[in-house]
Amino acid sequence: MSGGPIEFWFDFSSAYGYFASLEIEAVARRHGRDVLWRPFMLGAVFDVTGAKGLSRTPLKRDYALRDWARIARLLDRPFRLPAHHPSVALPAVRACLWLERERPDRVGPFASSVLRAYFEEEIDTADPQAVARVAERLGLPSAEIAAASDDPELKRLARLRSEEAVERGICGAPFMIVDGEPFWGWDRLPMLERWLERGGW
Amino acid sequence: MSGGPIEFWFDFSSAYGYFASLEIEAVARRHGRDVLWRPFMLGAVFDVTGAKGLSRTPLKRDYALRDWARIARLLDRPFRLPAHHPSVALPAVRACLWLERERPDRVGPFASSVLRAYFEEEIDTADPQAVARVAERLGLPSAEIAAASDDPELKRLARLRSEEAVERGICGAPFMIVDGEPFWGWDRLPMLERWLERGGW
Repeated sequence: MSGGPIEFWFDFSSAYGYFASLEIEAVARRHGRDVLWRPFMLGAVFDVTGAKGLSRTPLKRDYALRDWARIARLLDRPFRLPAHHPSVALPAVRACLWLERERPDRVGPFASSVLRAYFEEEIDTADPQAVARVAERLGLPSAEIAAASDDPELKRLARLRSEEAVERGICGAPFMIVDGEPFWGWDRLPMLERWLERGGW
Repeated sequence: MSGGPIEFWFDFSSAYGYFASLEIEAVARRHGRDVLWRPFMLGAVFDVTGAKGLSRTPLKRDYALRDWARIARLLDRPFRLPAHHPSVALPAVRACLWLERERPDRVGPFASSVLRAYFEEEIDTADPQAVARVAERLGLPSAEIAAASDDPELKRLARLRSEEAVERGICGAPFMIVDGEPFWGWDRLPMLERWLERGGW
C-alpha cells in the first residue's frame, strides 16, 4: 500500500456526504491514512450523468428520506433536511478553497462543521454570512471567509474543482479515492476499509 | 420480527441484481426467512425516475464496469457484460410468472440460473428459446416456458408486476423489502442483515 491519503469528495448538500463525513476520519485513522477533503459542486456531475438531486427525483426521494432517517438513528445523530434544501453551497466551497490556501490543516474540521450545521441546524450554505459564522465558531477569520465567496480567483478554483471531479470520473457524492481506487457512496465505506485491509483484491 | 419473506425485486439485466442473487438465499437462511423472487422490468422505474441503465450513463458507466469486475473478484465468480447488454428480458420475466403459477417452488432456482447464464455465459434473455434452454437444464418444461413469452395473460401480469414495483416505491434494482422495510442495492445486504438481527432500529 502506498499510504497516500483518502480523497473524500463531497457536496455540501449531500446527506450521504454528511453521514460519510461523520465516519471518514475514523476510517482513515484505523488504516494510518490522512483524509483530503475535496468539496465540489455535484451539479457539475449531474450535467454529465443527467441525474437530479435525490430530493428532486420521484421514487428515489421517498426512499432517500426514509433511508436518511434510519441512518441517522443508526449513527445516533440528529438529522433534518433543511427547508431550503438543496442549497447551492458555493460560498462553503469557496471558503474551503480559501482555507486550502491559507490554513490547509483546517479544511477538514471546517468542512465537517459546515455539513453538521446544514443537516443538524439548517444553516443556509448558500449564504456567505452563515458560512462565516461556522468559521467563527472554530476560531477562523470569519470576515475573510465571508469575502472568499466573492473572490474571482476562488470562484475560478471552485469551477476547476468541479471540472476535475468530472475529469476523474467522479459520478456522484460522496466519492472516495484511495491508492487510485474509487468508491462511490456512504454505503461503500465498509468496502473501502476491506480494500485497505487487504491492499486490494 | 414477523418472520415474513424477503421480497427480492430484480431486473434480469441488472449486474448488481446478479451479485445479490448469489447471496440473497444465504442471507435469508441465516435469519430463518424465505426469499420471494420478484422479477420486474426496471425500465418502468426509469420512466418515473428519469434514470437510464448504468451502462448507458456517462461517468456511472465507467465506475460500474470497474465496480462489477471487483465485486466479481471479491465473490470469486465469473462475470462478463454480454455484448448485447442490456437485453430486454421480458421472456425471462414471463417465464418466471408462468412458474409462479405452475411451479412456485422453482421460481428462485430458475431466476438465479437465468441471471448466471446471462452474466456468465452471455445468453440472450430477450430470446424465449434461450430462456427455455435454461429451464431445460433444470428439468423444467422448456416448450411451455418458451410459449409463456407469447401468452397474453402472462404479458398482462408482467406489466402489472412492473406497475406494482413503481406503486410500492421501488426506485432501482435490486430492491429488497422485508417486514415492510426497503433496501436498495447489492451494497445494502449488510444493512438488511443488521436490520434482521436487531429487528430494526
